[in-house]
Amino acid sequence: MRLARTLLPFALLATSVVAHAQTPVAKAIQAVMDKQVADWNRGDIDAFAKGYKNSSDILFIGRTIHRGYAEMVATYHKNYPTKERMGVLTFSQLDVQPLDARFATVTGHYHLEVSAAAGGNHDGYFLLVCEKTPVGWKIVRDDTTGLPQAGAQ
Amino acid sequence: MRLARTLLPFALLATSVVAHAQTPVAKAIQAVMDKQVADWNRGDIDAFAKGYKNSSDILFIGRTIHRGYAEMVATYHKNYPTKERMGVLTFSQLDVQPLDARFATVTGHYHLEVSAAAGGNHDGYFLLVCEKTPVGWKIVRDDTTGLPQAGAQ
Repeated sequence: MRLARTLLPFALLATSVVAHAQTPVAKAIQAVMDKQVADWNRGDIDAFAKGYKNSSDILFIGRTIHRGYAEMVATYHKNYPTKERMGVLTFSQLDVQPLDARFATVTGHYHLEVSAAAGGNHDGYFLLVCEKTPVGWKIVRDDTTGLPQAGAQ
Repeated sequence: MRLARTLLPFALLATSVVAHAQTPVAKAIQAVMDKQVADWNRGDIDAFAKGYKNSSDILFIGRTIHRGYAEMVATYHKNYPTKERMGVLTFSQLDVQPLDARFATVTGHYHLEVSAAAGGNHDGYFLLVCEKTPVGWKIVRDDTTGLPQAGAQ
């Protein structure tokens, strides 16, 4: 029981990758995603947001289309005002596909473990476009598709 | 009344574009989207599918992730077995953003007008990645987010 309690946070933090060979690009983008998971699960939206390019051209699609870094960060803060609402994030089925030397897409599944009191769990798929910028790989487009909520277990 | 009846099909076929300057890339991709709308509304899924690159690497995300042209076409045929189920498609809020000379993203909103008997209307947002191939611009990634159904009017 004690072991289970100890291991659980690490299991929730882990991301899994489909069984492709991990290219340098895939490894670099995986590191960005891993940092986003750690930042999110610490309750730090501003650090999480640094996975995105700080540009007015980026797009984030959730329930509607948001354009620009500032609007995206504001939307995250509005939708997730507390650490309890943010819950615990995991990514799975991550698949990095380079388009060319500068751009790559990432697809995957997210799971957000949220208490029933704070709204219950969320699950969905996403498609990201990442750009290799002078300060590293950054997300420039994000379409995150929420599936019907399963509710907190 | 007669005029309204005459104009309606054209109104349903039309796509609208946000008020950006239409670059040559945006015009070329708009033409691909317009052809997809016309093919869909004629009930021709195989012609509609030619807007996508015929490659095993393409990804289509709907309720789950589908990989490869053949699987995508099969999924379309499975989900839309009849012209009535296909309904009448319109795109709006189309926004083409070039990534570089070879790739561009397209975001927008789709509306599918479907009779109540055939399942009712669908609406949602999408993010596409398009590639300039030797045979023209083709969709290589598609994340189409269904919103809760409004039901047939």
